[in-house]
Amino acid sequence: MAQPAEKHHTDSRLESLNEALSSGGFLQIRRMLNGLPPADAAHLIESTPHTLRGILWQLVDIENEGDILQHLNDEVQAQFLRQMDAEEVATITEGLEADDIADILQQLPDRVIREVLDSMDHQDRVRIEHVLSYDEDTAGGLMNTDTITVRPNITLDVALRYLRRHESLPEMTDSLLVVNRNDQFIGLLSLRKMLVSDPSVTVREIMDTEVEPIQATKSAREVASLFERFDWVSAPVVDENHYLLGRITIDDVVDVIREESDHSLMSMAGLDEDEDTFASVLSTAPRRAIWLGINLLTAFVASGVINLFEGTIEKVVALAVLMPIVASMGGVAGTQTLTVVIRGMALGHISRNNSRWLINREMLVGAINGLIWALIVAGAATLWFEDPLIGAIIAAAMVINLITAALAGAILPLIMKSLNIDPALAGGVVLTTVTDVVGFMSFLGLATYFYA
Amino acid sequence: MAQPAEKHHTDSRLESLNEALSSGGFLQIRRMLNGLPPADAAHLIESTPHTLRGILWQLVDIENEGDILQHLNDEVQAQFLRQMDAEEVATITEGLEADDIADILQQLPDRVIREVLDSMDHQDRVRIEHVLSYDEDTAGGLMNTDTITVRPNITLDVALRYLRRHESLPEMTDSLLVVNRNDQFIGLLSLRKMLVSDPSVTVREIMDTEVEPIQATKSAREVASLFERFDWVSAPVVDENHYLLGRITIDDVVDVIREESDHSLMSMAGLDEDEDTFASVLSTAPRRAIWLGINLLTAFVASGVINLFEGTIEKVVALAVLMPIVASMGGVAGTQTLTVVIRGMALGHISRNNSRWLINREMLVGAINGLIWALIVAGAATLWFEDPLIGAIIAAAMVINLITAALAGAILPLIMKSLNIDPALAGGVVLTTVTDVVGFMSFLGLATYFYA
Repeated sequence: MAQPAEKHHTDSRLESLNEALSSGGFLQIRRMLNGLPPADAAHLIESTPHTLRGILWQLVDIENEGDILQHLNDEVQAQFLRQMDAEEVATITEGLEADDIADILQQLPDRVIREVLDSMDHQDRVRIEHVLSYDEDTAGGLMNTDTITVRPNITLDVALRYLRRHESLPEMTDSLLVVNRNDQFIGLLSLRKMLVSDPSVTVREIMDTEVEPIQATKSAREVASLFERFDWVSAPVVDENHYLLGRITIDDVVDVIREESDHSLMSMAGLDEDEDTFASVLSTAPRRAIWLGINLLTAFVASGVINLFEGTIEKVVALAVLMPIVASMGGVAGTQTLTVVIRGMALGHISRNNSRWLINREMLVGAINGLIWALIVAGAATLWFEDPLIGAIIAAAMVINLITAALAGAILPLIMKSLNIDPALAGGVVLTTVTDVVGFMSFLGLATYFYA
Repeated sequence: MAQPAEKHHTDSRLESLNEALSSGGFLQIRRMLNGLPPADAAHLIESTPHTLRGILWQLVDIENEGDILQHLNDEVQAQFLRQMDAEEVATITEGLEADDIADILQQLPDRVIREVLDSMDHQDRVRIEHVLSYDEDTAGGLMNTDTITVRPNITLDVALRYLRRHESLPEMTDSLLVVNRNDQFIGLLSLRKMLVSDPSVTVREIMDTEVEPIQATKSAREVASLFERFDWVSAPVVDENHYLLGRITIDDVVDVIREESDHSLMSMAGLDEDEDTFASVLSTAPRRAIWLGINLLTAFVASGVINLFEGTIEKVVALAVLMPIVASMGGVAGTQTLTVVIRGMALGHISRNNSRWLINREMLVGAINGLIWALIVAGAATLWFEDPLIGAIIAAAMVINLITAALAGAILPLIMKSLNIDPALAGGVVLTTVTDVVGFMSFLGLATYFYA
């Protein structure tokens, strides 16, 4: 393992990269790229604008390509894979772990996957087909097949001698998997326990049978939650008949946790968590355009509401000046509630049983903060336009909108979830439509009533 | 270890909890709470509105309190700790890992921490003072002191016999730490390697000396990035003189990664990542109020801009109807850019060297999408108000605002970071102020020029 390098080194690395590129010092770049730990090289490639990535990739030695490729994000993987034929893909992925190969293959069209598999040796093919048969976002898609299994009736001494016959043990091996003669999982034997136990006891006597193995069809999110709660380093994966299929290791779970957390952040802005920071204009623009288009539709709805009160605005222009305040405060309050609920749902804290309490709490908070800021806005508006009526109206509208915002922010994600729509993705647009419409409607509606 | 339970079981657990609470079945709840794995019990308590938490906590047996407490989030920990005296805290935390005890103690006032430490036995006190002397968000604050060390000159056989003298090895022990006679770290000996090597070789011959130990003052975020890049299960922590202080394990790193990812999401809505989903109204309202107050100030700035063009709006009320569209589209486009940049910064992808490229890309994307939607908005506005001039004006304003939004969304977080202000926290407010002001200014300004 090479020396770990700091994140802030990326900066100086990128700088020397830029210099080398502009002075044509390809030899220097090649040496640097191939000398870095694969994760660092991948990080450097991801941090490079897409136009230069092709050049960097050309400079990676073929024996490092697989290791670096597995650390790249899906989009960049796809970019490089597009230029390879099946044979090349099979060559460079040789020696990677089954789940990493499966991840890479999933970027390819089905026809090419078939070709790559066909050009692998039989054992590898079977191993990878196994992982590929499960969805990427399930335990089966996350698992490796590099398990070390033992029988329960042997002594530790025999088990230890069996281990010594290996060249090396797979990364992150913290326990041996105990199986019966049908290859069904029956328990875990941790290395830590092996090392402190009397060599003459049998595996059966000290194995841990309380650990429930993970079903291959379990979602990646649930797998991550189990690892987090039980502080596992690795865990066995079985099929519905308890046959041992493989094991999941914490490094892959960490990636799931990272992606899951990024998902909420990115979705709330209508973005994908796989979004490549340095993608091209042509691939970025259309993705963003769709979200803007949806927002445009909802903005027109809000405009339609304002249009209903054209006559009133014509008489009292101050309404046009003040109306964005009501809408904006509702938007912010609603987004706060929405974010809390979406995070709570991601952590598994929110269920049918406590959501009513949460909705009530949010509405009460909305009412209190609505009242506080309504008083201040009322004062400011009254002074500004020398009109206490407009102060009273904006105050009332603000309280109405902040309570509505809290209600919508809490209920929308729950409704979306029950409809199987991603709450983080759709919540934001729908919410601001609600707060805009209610904000304009209550403010201009009250004004029309009192000024007409 | 008890049987792992599914996240969706929380629902049915909460249901039986509610039933038991309303029927006064405290015995039943006590049995359930104390029978669950501590992480699950903590999850259940966190998922319960704050009013009922006190009751649940009363029902936790004293020998389980420490284990459950360490799994609770900071806010809930603080809630329970407030009701304990120093002696109690010392009793229930006995037997926890040093870093977990340090985390719990950090919720207490300094005076109480002192008292708790004083009532511990000498060895524990020294251990915890060590961890407490480092900031919570550094390697030193994350570390445990439960290392197993060996000297380089002994043979594996001796090392194995030394291990066998232990009752058990600390959780997540994947390697022994090799130190010289001054207790300075010199290498790692992985259990995996021990188990496949000839027992007669010395530790020196097979230890890994390439691993750079972590400096105690390194930030938690950098530690997490090292673990992610090198797939570590545990890593040694040293002081500036290479003296071994302890080790960090992946379970604590996973918590850092989770919090770090949550931070961006929550900060963008002006919330803290430690926010307790089921906190009381009284503790929630003030926190939210501050953010709303800041937003109110910026909303008044936008209103001030509109007010400059009162005369024009009086003449052409359609302007009041359409102006929120320009502001809203700018806000959405800017937020997308901001989110991409904040995520990119969190992943360490963005530096001085590639930010110029990114800013240009974003502005180009803004210009393209601005043009596309400007044409559609122009058409719609022209048809709606039967006035091609208003269509042309809104189109121009939208292009201006979307390019500005992209520029602001990309540059603001970079500026904030260089000023050491959290970009996720401040970015959103400043950004929407910019897009509102520029949106209203360009639209109403152009309209004033052409309609006056």
